[in-house]
Amino acid sequence: MSKLCIVGIGPGSKDYLTQIAIKTVENSDFVIGSQRALDLFENASQKIVFNVKNLEEFLYKSVDLVNEGFNVSLLSTGDPGFSGLLKPILRIAKEKNLDEKAIEVFPGISSLQLASAKTHIPWDEANIMTFHGRDDQSAILDIIENNSDTRESINSKSSIILPSKSVKDFAKFLIDSGVDENRKITVCERLSYLNEKIVDTTLKDILNSNFSYMCILVIY
Amino acid sequence: MSKLCIVGIGPGSKDYLTQIAIKTVENSDFVIGSQRALDLFENASQKIVFNVKNLEEFLYKSVDLVNEGFNVSLLSTGDPGFSGLLKPILRIAKEKNLDEKAIEVFPGISSLQLASAKTHIPWDEANIMTFHGRDDQSAILDIIENNSDTRESINSKSSIILPSKSVKDFAKFLIDSGVDENRKITVCERLSYLNEKIVDTTLKDILNSNFSYMCILVIY
Ligand SMILES: C[S@@+](CC[C@H](N)C(=O)[O-])C[C@H]1O[C@@H](n2cnc3c(N)ncnc32)[C@H](O)[C@@H]1O
Ligand SMILES: C[S@@+](CC[C@H](N)C(=O)[O-])C[C@H]1O[C@@H](n2cnc3c(N)ncnc32)[C@H](O)[C@@H]1O
Repeated sequence: MSKLCIVGIGPGSKDYLTQIAIKTVENSDFVIGSQRALDLFENASQKIVFNVKNLEEFLYKSVDLVNEGFNVSLLSTGDPGFSGLLKPILRIAKEKNLDEKAIEVFPGISSLQLASAKTHIPWDEANIMTFHGRDDQSAILDIIENNSDTRESINSKSSIILPSKSVKDFAKFLIDSGVDENRKITVCERLSYLNEKIVDTTLKDILNSNFSYMCILVIY
Repeated sequence: MSKLCIVGIGPGSKDYLTQIAIKTVENSDFVIGSQRALDLFENASQKIVFNVKNLEEFLYKSVDLVNEGFNVSLLSTGDPGFSGLLKPILRIAKEKNLDEKAIEVFPGISSLQLASAKTHIPWDEANIMTFHGRDDQSAILDIIENNSDTRESINSKSSIILPSKSVKDFAKFLIDSGVDENRKITVCERLSYLNEKIVDTTLKDILNSNFSYMCILVIY
């Protein structure tokens, strides 16, 4: 039976690749991923590049190739099971009548885990939440109380958050919703890359700063 | 500055080691871990073995060695930040006046992630919870409703759970608390090992089975 392997590549640098991710990719007939994901694997055979805009098309393509009898590795940043490619692939596999048994998932180190490691916040005790690809971020307000006076009493857990759009938009949304503008937050940008930046700041100060889209946030 | 590296080794087989975990261990003066963790690293220098009973003593020992000027790798199964060694080490470091900046954490693939990968349940949409080292498991009842009739309406999320003691005790506790004994559950035992077992079963059937302590559960 040919396989569709959903391979987690970790936060981005080669350092976080697992042994099994490397082996799996090297043994596939086709490897499908973004350019920066494909660049991690020198010994991969046939490489197929997608980008954010044509991602969906290439998810269909991966399933089609498996249905044609090829072994395919599909590269997913971080962990495919955390805001990654597992969910859309299950939907498309169903639509295309690919047996779910043909799908094998290889976990990768999530950006969430590296953010936890860098800030020394155990994530079994944190609120973890992803707003990636979602417009409505209001669920965050149920998790971090929006009045700093009562903070300790309501919820003393930290939160590790994948924002929906820019970090600035996210900070603005929280402040507009009544969260104390002096609330402490750590922005983890481009984790594991050479230009990684980890900045301890406040909601207010984020409004005057510029971060790329590749950020994960820890709110205390 | 000498470093205390808390290194996640993943679920157990070499397959899930990251590149950076291997490098970090090879560059340490001392490597401290359980026998099965140490066995993963052939090229480690000075190895120090602990077991469940003397774990606490060897956590102190790791911090002492760093205070004496050595670089130490402390091996933690799965991810140190998920029910792992990060929490106890932070406590001991504080007690022993080790600067928190001397602690570096390297995430590993958690058993939770491999359970998610094997069952195709995205974990950003699941309830995830650990009862490891806790006596009171009653918080589970707030998460999985205990009346199967109303199931869909209250909470349709799956749960991925590290049980407190044996899987059998856990199943018995759920049934005694009124959860439907036909409730579906997957037991993931010894993930990534050669004798890995993934069993789709029900609470009732667990009462008549035998699983080792190395299990993680998915409840639907
Ligand atoms: C589609 S989600 C993928 C998440 C991924 N599956 C994971 O487990 O990390 C993309 C978002 O993840 C976060 N992210 C991924 N890699 C990152 C990195 N190296 N540094 C910081 N954030 C990252 C950013 O919030 C980014 O917008
Ligand atoms: C002290 S906790 C460590 C959890 C670890 N930090 C992690 O992220 O997986 C030990 C518990 O993790 C689970 N566990 C660890 N490795 C496992 C494996 N290979 N297969 C199944 N469960 C495992 C079991 O529930 C075990 O009792």
